[in-house]
Amino acid sequence: MKTITLYSIIISSLVLLTSCSQTEQTSNKIFEKGQKVTQNFTGETWVQMLTVDGENFDAMSYNVTFAAGSRTYWHSHPGGQILYCLSGEGRYQEKDGAIRSLKAGDVIEIKPDVVHWHGAGPDMEFVHLGISTRLSEGPANWYGPVTDEEYNNQK
Amino acid sequence: MKTITLYSIIISSLVLLTSCSQTEQTSNKIFEKGQKVTQNFTGETWVQMLTVDGENFDAMSYNVTFAAGSRTYWHSHPGGQILYCLSGEGRYQEKDGAIRSLKAGDVIEIKPDVVHWHGAGPDMEFVHLGISTRLSEGPANWYGPVTDEEYNNQK
Repeated sequence: MKTITLYSIIISSLVLLTSCSQTEQTSNKIFEKGQKVTQNFTGETWVQMLTVDGENFDAMSYNVTFAAGSRTYWHSHPGGQILYCLSGEGRYQEKDGAIRSLKAGDVIEIKPDVVHWHGAGPDMEFVHLGISTRLSEGPANWYGPVTDEEYNNQK
Repeated sequence: MKTITLYSIIISSLVLLTSCSQTEQTSNKIFEKGQKVTQNFTGETWVQMLTVDGENFDAMSYNVTFAAGSRTYWHSHPGGQILYCLSGEGRYQEKDGAIRSLKAGDVIEIKPDVVHWHGAGPDMEFVHLGISTRLSEGPANWYGPVTDEEYNNQK
């Protein structure tokens, strides 16, 4: 009888552990992961467009999933951009500024024409929602890769 | 010895259960809950402003937490609004349209001047991120409460 109780407790613990890790995974995936991007990013990154109606909203928005270590190229937006961090551990840097660490709940306001990059930290996937505001000002400008030296220069 | 093992397994299970339910709570709370609002909403609702820089982004954004059954008044935005559903179960309706159920991952594009309301379902809290786009077109217009009859008229 004692053995049966012991086994049932062990099995319950395993079931609980499994459901727990499923919850953690689900919590990281509010929006679809989307398609792997091939241009203007270093490492594996996926983008799911969420809204594309520039005419009505003068904005477009997207969910971006960065694998650990992956990041955008240096770029700027003539109409600005806002990032809403949803899960994982990220990095953000403006030209000539220090690298900032990002976590879920952080909101980054990137003013028009500010050259910057964003991406995952070196050890963990990172997900943010992003919105390109004042879209009618024009598309993003791209300035080439963030080198490994730049990426690892965490002061 | 067997008794000690049994106790340690029970305690481990309880610790696991506690950490598991904490994870579930945290996953619903990416952004701060903010302050309770008193105008233009029915029931208990909390708003945390996320961005307010209209000059640079021509937008403002906010996290809204609706207690079960709570909802906005009927209203419209001259520059449009986009809702990004983060957790729980919500409701959305445009004037003369059917009530839509909302869940995490849903994105609602509300075109300029469309009269509508949004809120929680009757049995569960609901959280969305919202952005008021083309803010320079002017502030929201409010048209009074969504009655219980309107709220419960789920076709």
